[in-house]
Amino acid sequence: MQLLNYFFNPKSIAVIGVSRNPKKFGHIIFKNLLESKFKGKVFAINPNADNILGEKCYPNITDIKENIDLSLILLPSEKVLDAVNDCVKKNVKVCIIFSAGFSEVGNKEDEEKIKDIIRNKMRVIGPNVLGIYDAYSNIDTIFNLRYRQKRPEKGPIAFVSQSGAFGAAIMDWASSENIGFSKFISLGNMIDVDEVDLLEYLMHDNRTKIITLYLEGSKRPRKLFETLKEITKIKPVIVLKAGKTSEGAKAISSHTGSLAGESKLYSALFKQSGTIEANDTEELFDFAKAFYQNLPNGERIQIITDGGGFGIMAADAAIKNGLKLANLSEKNKNEIKKFIPRYAVVENIIDLTGDADTKRYENVLNIVMKDENIDIVLVIILLQISALQSDIVDVINKMKKYNKPLFVCAPGGEFTNLHKNLIEKNGIPVYPTPERAIKAIKALVEYKKYKDKI
Amino acid sequence: MQLLNYFFNPKSIAVIGVSRNPKKFGHIIFKNLLESKFKGKVFAINPNADNILGEKCYPNITDIKENIDLSLILLPSEKVLDAVNDCVKKNVKVCIIFSAGFSEVGNKEDEEKIKDIIRNKMRVIGPNVLGIYDAYSNIDTIFNLRYRQKRPEKGPIAFVSQSGAFGAAIMDWASSENIGFSKFISLGNMIDVDEVDLLEYLMHDNRTKIITLYLEGSKRPRKLFETLKEITKIKPVIVLKAGKTSEGAKAISSHTGSLAGESKLYSALFKQSGTIEANDTEELFDFAKAFYQNLPNGERIQIITDGGGFGIMAADAAIKNGLKLANLSEKNKNEIKKFIPRYAVVENIIDLTGDADTKRYENVLNIVMKDENIDIVLVIILLQISALQSDIVDVINKMKKYNKPLFVCAPGGEFTNLHKNLIEKNGIPVYPTPERAIKAIKALVEYKKYKDKI
Repeated sequence: MQLLNYFFNPKSIAVIGVSRNPKKFGHIIFKNLLESKFKGKVFAINPNADNILGEKCYPNITDIKENIDLSLILLPSEKVLDAVNDCVKKNVKVCIIFSAGFSEVGNKEDEEKIKDIIRNKMRVIGPNVLGIYDAYSNIDTIFNLRYRQKRPEKGPIAFVSQSGAFGAAIMDWASSENIGFSKFISLGNMIDVDEVDLLEYLMHDNRTKIITLYLEGSKRPRKLFETLKEITKIKPVIVLKAGKTSEGAKAISSHTGSLAGESKLYSALFKQSGTIEANDTEELFDFAKAFYQNLPNGERIQIITDGGGFGIMAADAAIKNGLKLANLSEKNKNEIKKFIPRYAVVENIIDLTGDADTKRYENVLNIVMKDENIDIVLVIILLQISALQSDIVDVINKMKKYNKPLFVCAPGGEFTNLHKNLIEKNGIPVYPTPERAIKAIKALVEYKKYKDKI
Repeated sequence: MQLLNYFFNPKSIAVIGVSRNPKKFGHIIFKNLLESKFKGKVFAINPNADNILGEKCYPNITDIKENIDLSLILLPSEKVLDAVNDCVKKNVKVCIIFSAGFSEVGNKEDEEKIKDIIRNKMRVIGPNVLGIYDAYSNIDTIFNLRYRQKRPEKGPIAFVSQSGAFGAAIMDWASSENIGFSKFISLGNMIDVDEVDLLEYLMHDNRTKIITLYLEGSKRPRKLFETLKEITKIKPVIVLKAGKTSEGAKAISSHTGSLAGESKLYSALFKQSGTIEANDTEELFDFAKAFYQNLPNGERIQIITDGGGFGIMAADAAIKNGLKLANLSEKNKNEIKKFIPRYAVVENIIDLTGDADTKRYENVLNIVMKDENIDIVLVIILLQISALQSDIVDVINKMKKYNKPLFVCAPGGEFTNLHKNLIEKNGIPVYPTPERAIKAIKALVEYKKYKDKI
């Protein structure tokens, strides 16, 4: 367990297979590391070059005098075995093998040989991986160019992916959505470190408050579910399981060589272990964002809106998802009526109406956030309407003091997204549609119910 | 029917209630019209001002000598009746009443009075509306500021909304997504022109290829469904029905005063009339975009990807949604194998693998687009990977020549979105997740099946 820490907090890194060709992964990763804020030493290994990017090249990792914590192997598959051998000789702690050409193309023999070499000596992620990323220690071994794939800011979400390409696309998307990551790990063929190892590690990682997992299959499902059961006592885990149909499962076995496993069985075990299952890509992070906040005391939702249509759709979605609409206390209903037009609705949905300004939101929110008949508040804000000024951001952010889960739905384009980012930076999740907000609330409520039972 | 055309193609517009105050709707709409590319004449009515924004103000619409096709009433509710009377006296063809304060606040009496005044003389949209927008004739009477709510570019989609705020947020979002509109209409309280009138008008509107509708309820449901049945023979209609639960329905009756209607009955009637029902906000336009293209010959989908994980998720989604994965002809399978690595999968999912470049996509797409065992192609492109160059845009756009529905899934952030926009500009829809692409394909297939039956 402790050993895995070297992947994310190494003092020294050796890049085996640094290339002069700026299009090769061996060049991109080395350059990314040099340009990153990583404080440790980075060594280049290339027997055919004296120096690359102004850095001295060593012919072999064994030629380096200093200790090496983490090695990255970027060689063609036929040269990997020798390199692994050298790493073990050099007492390297942990290693990432990026090279493809192993079990994913039918070459299981070399994977078995690597397993024999590293046993009890070195931990390995890979082969056939995209790399890892740690927003806090600045370890970035992702081989995609930064202009093509942005890196997420620091944040509470760890993301473990059994598909590299999926991981890359999601990290890129998450960055553009300003979703912060603690760590990202692409697992590849998992000859050594697998999803269970990573989950165990992340359970004790203080930077990680929420774990997300893209899972195709597990080679040790029983252990996976035991581990999930332990983790979900401490922090939420949200999983997206691919290969849920026989057609998808067939594709999986040809993809990572994992056994797809019985999809229904997995779903049942996720439920039993308090793991939240996302049904699609968007839900994975919609749900994760819900956990920026404390768990609610119950499941009664109050919807507040300045546009009737969106309020109705939110109520529809809440009921369809089996959630309960809150009943304000009579006292508070009357209190709210002082601040809103006489014709405005104050029921399951509080409709502040289209001319609601920031002050009206503030007055009503201050009442609702304190009401003991309300466990969760969903605020819909329509920034297209000129009555609502930008300081709605401050009003919403101030509501954090009540320690009650607050969700925001802000549908719209660029102007709206500016405000969305300012609210999410403060740890309040914002969704583009009422339906997506409600489903995220549901995930939070389900996890709360699970924790109450255990 | 013909009369409704004056809403979108007036030669002259009178704005009744132009204000000096730049924060008032009466100012914003007048300014927007002056600054727009609208070629006709715009007259300002304000009895207390000589001129506003450099334009002469008339005390009353009856003081204008020229004919007025369209009048916009922006007065407080108590002054609306007189203004409507004046419009009728002046022989104005059509009128939009923006003012609130009618049946939505319990004031049904004044609505009845307006109905009496206009009967057989003038058609009215409103009261209590956001306005209308025509991207072709440059009529823009939306009262939201342009920096807060962008206007969509020209395009094939008409959008009719029974909620103004919903319409505004969606137009704003659609603009940021580069979805083009022909017309937008906010219906408000519908004392005269209702969703049926608009649908009938749009059926014959050549600019409109696809109709989208946000529906809370209908005052003449039988006529609505007869109309839908006629339209769907010619062009697709996609509807989002709000108030599908009793809680939502309760909120509706207090919102626009419409009767919510039995949600299940509506769903059944949509199905019978070939109307495509969206389940949430995102689906409304995800589905609309599917109809940029011709209808498929059948329902057999070929998935092509350069990332295994996304391929699996697309296959999962296709099966879950009751679609069929295509079976390539043996001849074409062998042909494709010439262009891809020996270990790559060529089955229900063609996995071009992570090092696929533009040429590999082009070679394989040229085979797949011609294969008679394939009706629809879903191409997944991961632009994070450096092997894939920007000219993938040209390759995909060139595939239009085959006249086979082609869907693209491009998950990612800013770099990806740049390319997405270039592809969609050419009429090929692009989706951010495999699940959303598949659901859109399903909408296209369902419509095709309906049309085959009738």
